[in-house]
Amino acid sequence: MGISVEFGMSNRPDAGQLNVPSRILMGPGPSMISPRVREAMAAPALGYMDPDFLDVLDDIQELLQYTFQTDNDWTLATSGTGTAAMETTIGNLLEPGETMLVRESGYWGDRMAQMAHRVGGEVVSLDVSPTAPIDPDDVADAFADNDIDVFGFTHGDTTTGILQPDVAELASIARDHDAYTIMDCVTSLSGVEVQVDDWGVDAVYGSPQKCLSCTPGVTPLTVGDRAREKILDRETDPKSWYLDLTGVMEYWGDDPSYHHTPPTSSLYGLRESLRLVAEEGLEARWKRHRDVAGALVEGLEDLGLELFPDRDHWLPSLNTVRVPDGVDDAAVIDFLLSEYDIEIAGGLGELSGELWRIGCMGHSARHQNVAALLTGMEEALAAQEYDTSAIEA
Amino acid sequence: MGISVEFGMSNRPDAGQLNVPSRILMGPGPSMISPRVREAMAAPALGYMDPDFLDVLDDIQELLQYTFQTDNDWTLATSGTGTAAMETTIGNLLEPGETMLVRESGYWGDRMAQMAHRVGGEVVSLDVSPTAPIDPDDVADAFADNDIDVFGFTHGDTTTGILQPDVAELASIARDHDAYTIMDCVTSLSGVEVQVDDWGVDAVYGSPQKCLSCTPGVTPLTVGDRAREKILDRETDPKSWYLDLTGVMEYWGDDPSYHHTPPTSSLYGLRESLRLVAEEGLEARWKRHRDVAGALVEGLEDLGLELFPDRDHWLPSLNTVRVPDGVDDAAVIDFLLSEYDIEIAGGLGELSGELWRIGCMGHSARHQNVAALLTGMEEALAAQEYDTSAIEA
Repeated sequence: MGISVEFGMSNRPDAGQLNVPSRILMGPGPSMISPRVREAMAAPALGYMDPDFLDVLDDIQELLQYTFQTDNDWTLATSGTGTAAMETTIGNLLEPGETMLVRESGYWGDRMAQMAHRVGGEVVSLDVSPTAPIDPDDVADAFADNDIDVFGFTHGDTTTGILQPDVAELASIARDHDAYTIMDCVTSLSGVEVQVDDWGVDAVYGSPQKCLSCTPGVTPLTVGDRAREKILDRETDPKSWYLDLTGVMEYWGDDPSYHHTPPTSSLYGLRESLRLVAEEGLEARWKRHRDVAGALVEGLEDLGLELFPDRDHWLPSLNTVRVPDGVDDAAVIDFLLSEYDIEIAGGLGELSGELWRIGCMGHSARHQNVAALLTGMEEALAAQEYDTSAIEA
Repeated sequence: MGISVEFGMSNRPDAGQLNVPSRILMGPGPSMISPRVREAMAAPALGYMDPDFLDVLDDIQELLQYTFQTDNDWTLATSGTGTAAMETTIGNLLEPGETMLVRESGYWGDRMAQMAHRVGGEVVSLDVSPTAPIDPDDVADAFADNDIDVFGFTHGDTTTGILQPDVAELASIARDHDAYTIMDCVTSLSGVEVQVDDWGVDAVYGSPQKCLSCTPGVTPLTVGDRAREKILDRETDPKSWYLDLTGVMEYWGDDPSYHHTPPTSSLYGLRESLRLVAEEGLEARWKRHRDVAGALVEGLEDLGLELFPDRDHWLPSLNTVRVPDGVDDAAVIDFLLSEYDIEIAGGLGELSGELWRIGCMGHSARHQNVAALLTGMEEALAAQEYDTSAIEA
């Protein structure tokens, strides 16, 4: 084989050394990655069938069972980011021709509906106000009126900052109709209470890059025995080979065989982030998120800003406040990024321009970060000539 | 919300600190991750719409265009491992009812066929000997006899260690029939010559964890303009939302908008691994793989072992040698791992027990590793009472 020198061969890019600014990350995700997690990710590679690497998977399963509060055998990390985990649950639990119930309003309900359609499912939508959680009575009505197979909802909604209460009741309604529940815990897992077994939810996924303060790329997922039986009894193969849980569990099961290459370094990181959860303890971790986010909300209210959700449905890991009239939401975001190296975010979709979304997650959920943010926010609002004197007086 | 203390809450796992042995990785992947890549992955997180992070994506696109030798606009890293990239190409290029041509024998042809079936495609198989590359005449016959829309093949086969020649001719046959080619360069990209534009291949993916010596989790992918037009003109949505290239390119395009969370730390690592490719230069890198793997093969032949493929189809990045009669292939693999901390692998599927697969990729492709492997291999064969005296005399 001769080496040909082609167009472009001598045109080597020179990208320069990676130079990442040190941001305080208080948007809707990612949060700051814990230093111990970053160190763990830098460990050398191991083969995917190396006994030492299979031990890493075993550790992750045990730590995830604790974090999810479940005994589910099918507890694993999906080889993709949160959206891949969402698609894994829908693509495996829903067969073509079956019907999925989702929330009509909101970014994530829409995404779930699109995924259900793509795998050949029908969709029934719950018409719920974007400023409220799902009411169990509405769910009971939807189940009474429709033949629903799968019901998907978010526990902590990253769009609205609303925490869904009554999860056990929602799961119970579905179970009474021989249906299955999928719960998105992307923004809640390890930041607020999640009780997979006690609440009786069938399939639950979290996120590594929010309250776990790990890197995105592998996503916590757990599937209960009842849902597992449904998946093993499918009449058709899931549309995705990569996200086929029956195949994936051949690798994560007791007698592992190769299915696809897992994201090794990210799995090292996930293991370390879950160790940090176990060391802190779930109850202490939930309390820390409540306490630190409580100080954040109090400070924002002192600046005259108003919390978007009812206090009863406040999600400490993702705090949404209304943008006051006459204030340019994007200018505040840009000011915080350029002057304070702090990331927060604006509203998504129909809430664009209406909200700021301020995360308080994992390693980011510390008083030092809240203090810096509040100072920067006050300055940013003053630069917008927003009058806080009435409140401050 | 009261915090309930439930079963399991006090039962916190204690996993212990991560302790990864330092292996010489010379299996079919992963290769050893370059130290600079591991350091880059440990950089702090950035938000996915942070201008500094979007610069990282731009750098990766430019570096990948060099590595693939292409001007394709649709050049990116898929948010998953190699199998996700394979599914991305098939799931986007093949519509339900269309026909895909794959190789019948071999692990990867079978996987491509399964993916094609799952998205509603038909499959035509090329009956090729497992010990030979694909013959363009057979491909021409298959196109003459069938209405084929997409043709998928591997450039460097990780199962057999065979390098596919005549790629430009294969692509040309498909193009003449208004069909599209998908080339799997998982084991070849940056280790042997790959010329995407010159060869006229429509969709090509590589692997970060082989000759690039990066971590798995983000996978290089490039799609030519003709294939892009087909994808944009699809009559049906791809079955996967996560792997829908039209959506994904809204994030990787000129005016980025959020599609799904990308694996940030792995992307830092990929950027660094591609910088290392550009610094070394493609021609020098291909030569290094040939030279180091040449020394490896020579050393193995000196031990009386026989290269599996014809020399003309030798794939320097993955060297396959036959297991001699009477030698326990698994015992040799175990000996190398336990005594030398060296990973090699056995045969897959129908070649199980017939072959050893010895990678020589990226950061692993160094003479120091070949020397250690050859010494260990000689000792392992002696422990099996394999007689090399005739050869050594």
